[in-house]
Parts: sequence; structure tokens; C-alpha cells
Amino acid sequence: MDVDSKYFKNISSRERVIFEGAITMGALFHQFVGTPVTVESAATLEKSIKHAMELQPCIMEVEVKIDREMLEDSKSEFDYVSLSGEMMNIKVVSKYNDKRAVLRMEFIEELNYPLMYVEKVD
Amino acid sequence: MDVDSKYFKNISSRERVIFEGAITMGALFHQFVGTPVTVESAATLEKSIKHAMELQPCIMEVEVKIDREMLEDSKSEFDYVSLSGEMMNIKVVSKYNDKRAVLRMEFIEELNYPLMYVEKVD
Amino acid sequence: MDVDSKYFKNISSRERVIFEGAITMGALFHQFVGTPVTVESAATLEKSIKHAMELQPCIMEVEVKIDREMLEDSKSEFDYVSLSGEMMNIKVVSKYNDKRAVLRMEFIEELNYPLMYVEKVD
Amino acid sequence: MDVDSKYFKNISSRERVIFEGAITMGALFHQFVGTPVTVESAATLEKSIKHAMELQPCIMEVEVKIDREMLEDSKSEFDYVSLSGEMMNIKVVSKYNDKRAVLRMEFIEELNYPLMYVEKVD
Repeated sequence: MDVDSKYFKNISSRERVIFEGAITMGALFHQFVGTPVTVESAATLEKSIKHAMELQPCIMEVEVKIDREMLEDSKSEFDYVSLSGEMMNIKVVSKYNDKRAVLRMEFIEELNYPLMYVEKVD
Repeated sequence: MDVDSKYFKNISSRERVIFEGAITMGALFHQFVGTPVTVESAATLEKSIKHAMELQPCIMEVEVKIDREMLEDSKSEFDYVSLSGEMMNIKVVSKYNDKRAVLRMEFIEELNYPLMYVEKVD
Repeated sequence: MDVDSKYFKNISSRERVIFEGAITMGALFHQFVGTPVTVESAATLEKSIKHAMELQPCIMEVEVKIDREMLEDSKSEFDYVSLSGEMMNIKVVSKYNDKRAVLRMEFIEELNYPLMYVEKVD
Repeated sequence: MDVDSKYFKNISSRERVIFEGAITMGALFHQFVGTPVTVESAATLEKSIKHAMELQPCIMEVEVKIDREMLEDSKSEFDYVSLSGEMMNIKVVSKYNDKRAVLRMEFIEELNYPLMYVEKVD
């Protein structure tokens, strides 16, 4: 089956990279929030989130940075924390045909919200 | 802060509804896959998924149909199953300014994949 | 297959109810943390968590209370929050043969941790 | 605060290791089911699950084996699959005082169910 011509002919390549990048943003957040994490385990977790989410359709690159300072500050009696949206800075790059989108998620203090947005499409 | 003019001025209203709808699709899938479910509990779960995901930015309506036949067929010794992508049929409607997108997720046998796509934008 | 005599003959009924209750506690937390929630949607979410987790082996009753005050206080610009461990008060009752366990999860300020423990077994 | 004497004095060390091991089993399953995975990414995912879940109280060791053959067989058009319970073989070792429990999760064909059980306590 030609998936693209059957299911995606009603949107442009530019819209497609926005679409696929956004799916991956939402997926990443809701798959991994809640995972136990520390300063020591953060690098392994970042790498496995990257490898998992780069498998999704049209995704070229995923980068996740977990805020080490927040990990230290919110540590419990049991020395680890549950990963939450405000600890993560995420970059997702999607590509389709000649279009490429860079999407971001970062915690915006003023909104008290981990905002996802499109940084650029070219 | 005017979030829209600060973070979303580089994409059109049409792109925005695709973006927000797609985030919710990815989020819904990865939040709820794995949840224990039966024919009896399916309606409550569908309703709570709907209520949760309609909270996200620009989302007007979410409908989830969990396939009752698959629930019966894949039942284990313990009489329930873990919710999976192939059991769900999802519709997400997003709206921003004068634009409205309808997104779908359905399991496509031929692809062996729960495909997410944009049904229409108007 | 007689599951109990094959897989569980090495633990007592008292240990079995602790085992099954604890699985459900861990499962509940990690399945639902991250779900979007508001004061308005909290009751539906509590009910669907209850219905889902009561399906697990040996589980008689699950009660989840989501702290409405915390929902209000941690609201973002977009008027909802991601469910987190500190917002939940959970009771799980498990039963096997003549034994019955009551397990709890509650956020303990002093530990900065949502502690799971066995309240009683009888 | 002495957590143990305040919250855990009503259960034995043997019961405690069963309790903590079982929480981690339930948590692991419901945190990671749904994650995109391939033969190539499986080792990174196994390692990050291990590192995350070994952070939980009383957990000494976690081992996860994702079935490579099932990954190949259930591959979709998009060359990856969503991690599911039947693909995982899990070992959790918990320790408290002089007691040590080994818990297992494996998919039992005959039950059509990923069964969690206590392999031994000593």
C-alpha cells in the first residue's frame, strides 16, 4: 500500500512534518513521565528516550535534556524523583520530502506549563 | 503573556490545528496503552480518556472507541486485557481561529499499524 | 492449569495478598501519572482508575482520591495539570483465601515522597 | 523520620521484600508498555528500564529481556513495534535486612498472560 498517497495527500509536506513531529512530542511526554530518575541514571534515560522516539515515522532526531539541578532539588527521602514535564527540554526534528521541522518542548515558568511549539520549518 | 503571538506566529491557523491535534493523538496513545480493560469497563475508560484529552490546548472533541470484539477475543485466564493500539479507534477534533481539523487513528490491518492521519481540515 | 498450585505454592495467603496488592499499587501509579486532569474531570478519572485496577488478580477494591485543592493550586495557563503522585491518595484492598490486605499510598510531606505501605492484613 | 518503624513494623522482612519487589514489577510494566522498540534499540531500552527501576526502595537488581524474535515477527510497515507484556521477561531482586526475594514476570502461553510471581525468598 502507498500510505502517503492514500492517507496523506490532503496535507502538504510542511504540514506533514508538523503533524509527525507533534505526535512524537505528545507520545514522548506521556510515555516517560513518571519514570524514576536520578542524576546518575539521567544520561541512560535520555539516550533510551532518544532511541525509542526516533523510530516514529518521519522523525530524524530527538534530543532530551533532563535538568540535573531539578533532579537534585526535588529528591525525596529515597534519593530519586519521578520524571515530570518541567524537568525536560525536548527537541524533535522531523523530515518529509524537502521539508524539515524543528519542534521544542520547554517549561515556561510564566505559564507554569511545559509548552510544545514549532521552532522552525524549512 | 500572549502565548500565541510569542510562540505560534510562525505557523498558520491550519498548521496550528494539525499541530495541536497531533500532540493529543500521540499523548492519548502513550498515556493509556497498557491499562487493564474488559467489555464491562470499556465505556468508563473511553469516557475518562475523552475527558482527559479534551483538556489539551485547542482540542474541541475526543472520541475513543475500544473494540469490544477484540476485548473478548484476546481475554486472558484473568478475564481482562491490556489496552493496545490495535483495539482503539480515535477521533480528535481541534480548533483554532477559523480552522478546524479532524484527526483519526485506526488500526490498518495491511500495515499492521495503528495509523494516525488527518481526515480533514476546514 | 492450576496457576496457584504451580506458581504460588511457595508463598502464604498472607504474602499473596501483599504481593497482589503491591503490584496493583505500582501499576496504578505508573499507568496514570501524567494524565491531564482538572477539578471537573477528576471524578471521571478516579472512577476509571478504580474500574481498571479492580480487574487485576485478587483485587477486591480500589479507591483513588485526587486532591482537588492541589488541582486548583497547580493549574497552568491552560487550566489543567498533569496527574502526579503527590495529588493522589490510594487504597487497594486485595483478597486471597481467608486473607485480606489493605494497602495505602499517600504523599508524606516529610519524605517528599508518595509512600506505599501495608495498612493491615487480616 | 524512621520510615520503617513508622510504616512497616506490621509486616515481616520476608513480606517487605515481596511487597517492594511486587510494586516494582507493576510499575515497570505500566511505565514502559507502549514504548517504540526494534531489535536495534532493545538493548538501550533494557538498560534504561534496569537503571530506572533499580532506584526504587529495596530493589537490588532488575533484569529485562525483550524477545528479539517477537520484535522481528510483529514488525509493522514502519519497522518498529510498541513494547507489550508478552515480549518481556523480567527478573526483580529485592532485599531488606536478611531477606532477599526474586520475582519474575514471563508470558505464559497457556494463560495468554504475562504472569508475575515470586520465584523464591531466602
